[in-house]
Amino acid sequence: MYDEMVISDTDPLLESEFIIELVRHLRALDSYGAYEKWSDARILDPLIMTRERKKEMPLIADPDDVTLSNIRAYYNALALTIERECGHLCSPLISLSHEGFGRVLITVGKLVVMDRVLRDAHLFGFRSLEALKTESDKILNQAQAMVSRYPAVAAI
Amino acid sequence: MYDEMVISDTDPLLESEFIIELVRHLRALDSYGAYEKWSDARILDPLIMTRERKKEMPLIADPDDVTLSNIRAYYNALALTIERECGHLCSPLISLSHEGFGRVLITVGKLVVMDRVLRDAHLFGFRSLEALKTESDKILNQAQAMVSRYPAVAAI
Repeated sequence: MYDEMVISDTDPLLESEFIIELVRHLRALDSYGAYEKWSDARILDPLIMTRERKKEMPLIADPDDVTLSNIRAYYNALALTIERECGHLCSPLISLSHEGFGRVLITVGKLVVMDRVLRDAHLFGFRSLEALKTESDKILNQAQAMVSRYPAVAAI
Repeated sequence: MYDEMVISDTDPLLESEFIIELVRHLRALDSYGAYEKWSDARILDPLIMTRERKKEMPLIADPDDVTLSNIRAYYNALALTIERECGHLCSPLISLSHEGFGRVLITVGKLVVMDRVLRDAHLFGFRSLEALKTESDKILNQAQAMVSRYPAVAAI
């Protein structure tokens, strides 16, 4: 996708739990097997939107299929990680207009554990692999805190 | 849309609270003013899917723009009625593939008060105006019961 990769194949973050899960989901949505021979770093690379990459992107554009698929994989990975941690079924719901504006919810039982507005989906990405991990861990912790606080609603 | 209307302009149900709200939302989504001179009954009529009308429809089809707009209006009207009853902001989230399969959620605070799978959206509708009112009242009552049961989650 980009000329030069910004993730190294030896980055220790590639071994962290959420990143492993995310790669699994990215590979799962790769219905044509294009990623088969790609390393994890190469598959994750398009999710990194550095300042330099952002500058190259148009300000306004429709997100392409790969970006939409990456967005889906990302929120699916979050939902599945939450599900594994709390033991209840967890599902993401993404509603995105073709212009790349929308909302994404993750629910556990009848509890909303994540609720985000999506803007400029064609620019979807994280400053670095570390930022991806930090932001995702924050969402996961908040979700877990919600489930712990309202266990009855999460169990419906 | 259909040759013959199945709702009468003098149907007393047209005066019920939810139906009035629904008409307001159907008119609100009518961005080209096509409904301006239409009676409420005529605007509601395409939401009635009698057995006879269903027989005329293809089994599998993509929902057209009017149907999608009607679906949106319907869930917006439900959300706004719930909002008015419970006093908290309420929002619907509809995620629908172009084949007419998807899911719709209504949340109040962090509480999911309605969660439905949408199938065959091109056949969206109710057997009669009475069925529309009965089914909607049921959803509204269930939502209200959820809010009463978990007021803290609804107030987040």
